[in-house]
Amino acid sequence: MNYGAEVEVAIARTRADVARLHDELTRYGLSVWTGGNISARVPKADLFVIKPRGVSYSDLSPENMVLCDLEGAQIEHTPGSDRTPSIDTAAHAYVYRHMSHVGGVVHTHSTYATAWSARGESIPCVTASMAGEFGGDIPVTPVAGAGAIGEGVVGALTGHRSPAVLLQNHGVMTIGATARDAVRSAVLAEDSARTVHISRQLGDPRAIPQGEIDALFAR
Amino acid sequence: MNYGAEVEVAIARTRADVARLHDELTRYGLSVWTGGNISARVPKADLFVIKPRGVSYSDLSPENMVLCDLEGAQIEHTPGSDRTPSIDTAAHAYVYRHMSHVGGVVHTHSTYATAWSARGESIPCVTASMAGEFGGDIPVTPVAGAGAIGEGVVGALTGHRSPAVLLQNHGVMTIGATARDAVRSAVLAEDSARTVHISRQLGDPRAIPQGEIDALFAR
Amino acid sequence: MNYGAEVEVAIARTRADVARLHDELTRYGLSVWTGGNISARVPKADLFVIKPRGVSYSDLSPENMVLCDLEGAQIEHTPGSDRTPSIDTAAHAYVYRHMSHVGGVVHTHSTYATAWSARGESIPCVTASMAGEFGGDIPVTPVAGAGAIGEGVVGALTGHRSPAVLLQNHGVMTIGATARDAVRSAVLAEDSARTVHISRQLGDPRAIPQGEIDALFAR
Amino acid sequence: MNYGAEVEVAIARTRADVARLHDELTRYGLSVWTGGNISARVPKADLFVIKPRGVSYSDLSPENMVLCDLEGAQIEHTPGSDRTPSIDTAAHAYVYRHMSHVGGVVHTHSTYATAWSARGESIPCVTASMAGEFGGDIPVTPVAGAGAIGEGVVGALTGHRSPAVLLQNHGVMTIGATARDAVRSAVLAEDSARTVHISRQLGDPRAIPQGEIDALFAR
Repeated sequence: MNYGAEVEVAIARTRADVARLHDELTRYGLSVWTGGNISARVPKADLFVIKPRGVSYSDLSPENMVLCDLEGAQIEHTPGSDRTPSIDTAAHAYVYRHMSHVGGVVHTHSTYATAWSARGESIPCVTASMAGEFGGDIPVTPVAGAGAIGEGVVGALTGHRSPAVLLQNHGVMTIGATARDAVRSAVLAEDSARTVHISRQLGDPRAIPQGEIDALFAR
Repeated sequence: MNYGAEVEVAIARTRADVARLHDELTRYGLSVWTGGNISARVPKADLFVIKPRGVSYSDLSPENMVLCDLEGAQIEHTPGSDRTPSIDTAAHAYVYRHMSHVGGVVHTHSTYATAWSARGESIPCVTASMAGEFGGDIPVTPVAGAGAIGEGVVGALTGHRSPAVLLQNHGVMTIGATARDAVRSAVLAEDSARTVHISRQLGDPRAIPQGEIDALFAR
Repeated sequence: MNYGAEVEVAIARTRADVARLHDELTRYGLSVWTGGNISARVPKADLFVIKPRGVSYSDLSPENMVLCDLEGAQIEHTPGSDRTPSIDTAAHAYVYRHMSHVGGVVHTHSTYATAWSARGESIPCVTASMAGEFGGDIPVTPVAGAGAIGEGVVGALTGHRSPAVLLQNHGVMTIGATARDAVRSAVLAEDSARTVHISRQLGDPRAIPQGEIDALFAR
Repeated sequence: MNYGAEVEVAIARTRADVARLHDELTRYGLSVWTGGNISARVPKADLFVIKPRGVSYSDLSPENMVLCDLEGAQIEHTPGSDRTPSIDTAAHAYVYRHMSHVGGVVHTHSTYATAWSARGESIPCVTASMAGEFGGDIPVTPVAGAGAIGEGVVGALTGHRSPAVLLQNHGVMTIGATARDAVRSAVLAEDSARTVHISRQLGDPRAIPQGEIDALFAR
């Protein structure tokens, strides 16, 4: 299949972006082994690009990223078609179908975010950094199984300021206008999960008044 | 001694694999100084290759890996024969003798796994990642001394889904169809030990229902 | 604008210093994504150089550092003027205006310091390293909002031995005769915040008698 | 001063060893900024080589290591004589004067060891790794001030199996037949301090019976 020159260029750029952004997950310790995955919508097309399943981070390249349609079906006859897309592809696809403003999705099992998720607890907004990025608490959605992750994410984040949601007993998913934005939210979600965890270990962090959270989010 | 061309090629490949896989232990912070060791069975031969004793990770190479028979005795007159095999060689050999499907064994003193082992506690299965890799809790075997590690491992893992077992007051051992599989299990065992530890520090993680664990393990 | 040869040389040197010192924040894990910022006063001029807003650490260079006057206004028509200065520039400027001995300022959201700040707690001086660098406890100032950070820092550190102050629910700010001194204090503030946190997790650290703190600070 | 060809060669080798061994302190995260120091006795001479004061780890080289006599006085007219020896030189010298079998000394403020020291607690021997390296608990000596560190170390370690001792409210010191041995003990002391801390956070680690500790130490 050929999508025409403009879309083919966009696909190639998206492949390169998605491959390279995975370096940020290893840089910030958000993933181990082949865990975690990033996808990005191809601009002006009903397509997205996602990490292949079971490939080491050091072997990721634009060529082995997998191109999918918005149902999560792998597109044949393109570079990378010998790969299987990430096991979480259906959840990414569901988000792209239901949230048209989302251009990128990130999923990780990062340590502290997953620790909060295993207790089924949202992360309270007690730092200026959290207020600026998430505009309040990071919510949690009770989707432990593999089937309904996309629905859980869309349900939790629709109409919510936060671009991050904890998946109960599982990890965290973030969305963004671009894949880079979603990666930034994933990095800051883990940073917030860690800082608030550590703060609470020795007492109760002080709540930030809502008006101040709003002002920090507006900056 | 010469084992014939086919086996000699297999020995050479196994030496290279085992040497290189040790990089994953340092990459994920599973070992300090010369601690930890990986071995792999030589395909179609009653032999295995293991890390030498007391050699720095930065000095490991295919040449200084040690070739042993399944009693754990070092094979003479081969490259690497001037090295002493890992102090844990007898335990590795015991596993290969008693578990014919095992192609690789990994032992580490990784921090969080060892911390659970020092309390003699198994690690409860409260994340999707654990369910997928271990199919349930990571068990613990009460073998603190050096003598009976192999027996403890074989006893605990025979008929068990988990490829990882905690060694009481000592560390963790993992098995796999290949050495790479055993390394993946060692990496995920430490990741799980850390995540569940951190989750439990601020409350009780929610159990995952058995049916859901089964579904995640089957994926 | 041209400040004359001597000042122009000093500006160029300060740009290079500030750009390079940011490497220490990543080396010691004090910042994630584009968070944290360092500034330095230009010797013999009412100017300072600060990190640009929203630029990745790997893209920082002398050229994209931003030159400001002591009101925090960006100087036009110089290299870097196409950048926006750090969102915290007003706070840095306030410190330079009110503390003439200060040549460098560092602000981070480093994990353990921010965790103490979120509880609004000062860090008690219970290690020789803390006594030597801070001469006592690291204080906390109740400035959670963005407006009054500079005032809070100057109020807390004027007449105080400590070159570091926690910003409530936000992070930490350090000052120094040079930017390098302020960076050292930021590194040791996080190291102290972490060590004292961990010590207190399992009991009460012993206080160091004041006379001994004084002797260690005098070294 | 010239010590004769044999000793000059030994001095040069010791300078190179001590400079290079500092890389292990950064590799294992045992030191921040310019903290921590390693020294080594020059074989067959009443001399030792130690890290200079206040020099960055990335700037350490054989040439800027400092040569001292066993009173801790810097030897003049040698390379490195423009440097000041480490602030802890008197303590190292005291150890060399009073423990003739010691060839290397390491001092760090590594996080977990310092956290135990701040509570004035020894670290209980609850892992096989600790039993093998330290032969029992890691003791603590009540020397908080700068004056009497050497006496405290010699008092605590004379007749003791452990090559490591915690310095109350300060950090840890290790000794060894060679500087490399002392570095290994410093790495394993921090690893043990961390593992036992984490184990104890969620309950009581099981004690290892003395006979088993003895067997592990004898290996």
